[in-house]
Amino acid sequence: MDARSDPEWPVLAIDRQRRGSLVDQIVAAIAEMVNRRALPVGTKMPSVRQFAKSNGVSTFTVVESYDRLLHMGLLSSRRGSGFFVARSVADGSADACGDAAQPVQAPAPPGTVDALTADLYSGQSEALPVGSGWLPPEWYGESAILDAVRHAMKIPAGRLRGYGHPLGFPALRQHVASSLSDELFALEPEQVLLTHGATHAFDLVLRTLTRPGDVVLVEDPGYGNLLALVRHHGCIPVGIPRDAAGLDLDFLARAAAARQPKLMFVNTVLQNPLGTSLSPAQAHRLLGLAEQFDFWLVEDDIYRELAARGEASLAALDGLRRVIRVGSFSKTLSPVLRVGSICASSSLIPELVRVKMLTGLTTSEINERAVLDAVKNRAYRRQVERLVQQLDEARRRAIDRLAGAGLAPLARPRGGMFVSAGWPGPSTPERNGKRVAERALRAGILLAPGDFFSLETPSSTWFRFNAAYAAHDALLGFLHSIR
Amino acid sequence: MDARSDPEWPVLAIDRQRRGSLVDQIVAAIAEMVNRRALPVGTKMPSVRQFAKSNGVSTFTVVESYDRLLHMGLLSSRRGSGFFVARSVADGSADACGDAAQPVQAPAPPGTVDALTADLYSGQSEALPVGSGWLPPEWYGESAILDAVRHAMKIPAGRLRGYGHPLGFPALRQHVASSLSDELFALEPEQVLLTHGATHAFDLVLRTLTRPGDVVLVEDPGYGNLLALVRHHGCIPVGIPRDAAGLDLDFLARAAAARQPKLMFVNTVLQNPLGTSLSPAQAHRLLGLAEQFDFWLVEDDIYRELAARGEASLAALDGLRRVIRVGSFSKTLSPVLRVGSICASSSLIPELVRVKMLTGLTTSEINERAVLDAVKNRAYRRQVERLVQQLDEARRRAIDRLAGAGLAPLARPRGGMFVSAGWPGPSTPERNGKRVAERALRAGILLAPGDFFSLETPSSTWFRFNAAYAAHDALLGFLHSIR
Repeated sequence: MDARSDPEWPVLAIDRQRRGSLVDQIVAAIAEMVNRRALPVGTKMPSVRQFAKSNGVSTFTVVESYDRLLHMGLLSSRRGSGFFVARSVADGSADACGDAAQPVQAPAPPGTVDALTADLYSGQSEALPVGSGWLPPEWYGESAILDAVRHAMKIPAGRLRGYGHPLGFPALRQHVASSLSDELFALEPEQVLLTHGATHAFDLVLRTLTRPGDVVLVEDPGYGNLLALVRHHGCIPVGIPRDAAGLDLDFLARAAAARQPKLMFVNTVLQNPLGTSLSPAQAHRLLGLAEQFDFWLVEDDIYRELAARGEASLAALDGLRRVIRVGSFSKTLSPVLRVGSICASSSLIPELVRVKMLTGLTTSEINERAVLDAVKNRAYRRQVERLVQQLDEARRRAIDRLAGAGLAPLARPRGGMFVSAGWPGPSTPERNGKRVAERALRAGILLAPGDFFSLETPSSTWFRFNAAYAAHDALLGFLHSIR
Repeated sequence: MDARSDPEWPVLAIDRQRRGSLVDQIVAAIAEMVNRRALPVGTKMPSVRQFAKSNGVSTFTVVESYDRLLHMGLLSSRRGSGFFVARSVADGSADACGDAAQPVQAPAPPGTVDALTADLYSGQSEALPVGSGWLPPEWYGESAILDAVRHAMKIPAGRLRGYGHPLGFPALRQHVASSLSDELFALEPEQVLLTHGATHAFDLVLRTLTRPGDVVLVEDPGYGNLLALVRHHGCIPVGIPRDAAGLDLDFLARAAAARQPKLMFVNTVLQNPLGTSLSPAQAHRLLGLAEQFDFWLVEDDIYRELAARGEASLAALDGLRRVIRVGSFSKTLSPVLRVGSICASSSLIPELVRVKMLTGLTTSEINERAVLDAVKNRAYRRQVERLVQQLDEARRRAIDRLAGAGLAPLARPRGGMFVSAGWPGPSTPERNGKRVAERALRAGILLAPGDFFSLETPSSTWFRFNAAYAAHDALLGFLHSIR
């Protein structure tokens, strides 16, 4: 259902009569193209389904062909990012990584930003994770969390029956409901559905409320994985510009009138990647537009706990009628716990649960107990406060040092983990975001170029910096070298 | 994308001009229908999306209307099973559960088998879980598992970086690959993708390899949630009969020739719900048919560890070319861990990882570490052996006692947790599976009628019994009362 296609990738001339040798034909054709450099080293191959569709063969045939090419060393694969041309047949030379001897495990050729996506989430790379979405473990007070997890395991015998509650562990839902009721808006524990993190929550909302072909509004720039997820569903994402001044709501009104969107995703506070929050007036007008044009608002609220009290909350303004609020514990506890939440209207919850159960059964009560134990601990509040202070300090330092390297923030962040900053002026080949990220990776630095956060792939000259890593000398040295 | 609809549910007469009062109109119309008993107490309402589609209104309008009706006490909701008419306006009487005072939390009216699905997975019901898919916690050696979990938490500082590896915790993938290589077929750790349990694995495979409208073969009877999942994807499930003699492969050959399926799900050993295994000859012929008609085989192998050595394995026959093998730790460790696996061709893994990351990022390394610690423990082998013996004994006893109540097994199980058995002869109103299950629920017994495991909903007169609970006096007494 991935709507993207690569128009530059040619359809092969396949003789449909010789059915048994389809794989042979494909392998020979690709090998030939690699050999005459029609497919240069580093070229990304189409996905299995794209290739199958554009050539009218089965996915199985494509998988067989790619497998053969992997074993021949002509392609290399990289988890989460696909297949790449590794070397040509003729010269038999290894690719730039020199890993042709182990083609299956060979890393993707450096120089492909696509290949970074997996690393951005994995924490496996040894590169300095400047573009990542997580903090150093010690910032999370790791040992305290692990203690909490251990404590959480002191579960009375017989309590872990079956698969757990379809909505998620009741005591954690109770806690979420009462904390939110204290701080933002009133809700019942039955209005809280626990998920495997926020991305799973977005996926459930899309699966419950949209169908392929529906228009979905997103912020641009916004959370990169979400843009791809909307496309993966076969929905049509329409980007609403967001900048230092907030959302372009006039643009939104015109887009909503013209395109009749089913829902919109909004990261109200400490937005990823800008770090800014919507003003109360903007939040109010946005809700009015959602009413007027009858679409759902999905509020990505995962940075709420890092924000100052009193920042705008769509869910609070609306009382969970038209707003579906997504939360997470990944930003204040640890992303490895994989616990998120959806808060929604009582009448929407049964639909969401049905889809959750159909598509993956329950979420893990063990993780949910661990989260509850951690957040109920008195040390948790202090830990979050410490985290906020640490981030404030880190952002300040990052902005200063980035300025020293000639990069200015796109907006002044109101808190959180990100500073998005770039070179002023038009894009030059040297300052093209993707190319800089590719060079950075070769220098052992993982950067997240602006392209990751945008529906279009413009020649961005900015990056989202993780404040925790952005004042590192190696980064600054690298940025100074880009002129 | 749920293809089912309820043709009996009428389209309301809505005045499209009075836009602001759509919710009022819907609420009034439904209240009126409830009142004149056109919608009797206990009637299941259409899903929000079905209602929106058939009445040409937005999902938001439906949710608002249902919410209003919930608060009026005219509807009740139940997680995972939808909305039900709770009482009429006129008499103001509570429904059969007497819970109208708390409509949002009211249990679904008993007498609706749909409402059981959530309970089947939740372990929350106090009912004797005869129809469930889990074992008593003490059978799992619960304290040993929790010890393992605690041990698993002794993770060196700094190790839980980022979101974890996109494929899943490397050491557990290594363990899965080496155990399978020892016992069934050779594979590399890079061919193992960890998931949140087997259902998540099925979902990922469907999302990666099919699109709406594709034909997918399933076993009938087979795993009930999977049948619903295939439909939810907008795929067209075609049931291949399976009985004591195995799969009807002649039927399959005709269906494959006529319908060109994209893939087939097969539970090779200790099939749910029959408990039987495919013979080596059937497995071989099935693989031949998959080759001939060019479809993928997704082997549901979650009961493998409970089966005797040497049972047929499609993955072993095929070497993971055309077969995608799904495993789980839910049946030998605990379902609350939510850890499953996909083993597949090297060239399919990058596609599967891409969809996994897009739709929910990584799986929890904490759970995966816990599983690894548990399965590497020397006690694990002994625990599984004990479990197998306990199940053997329980199945024997269950079959004997069910025979005493007049129920004969549909097939002689070769192992595992299930015995499917029913009354011989044609269906009578008294022995209708769904009705019996409804009566059983009122008697505090959760039964899984044959209808749950079938694409059609015939008037089944059989049930899938969880052997661990099937010799219980309360169950036998109840079955004796059905005449």
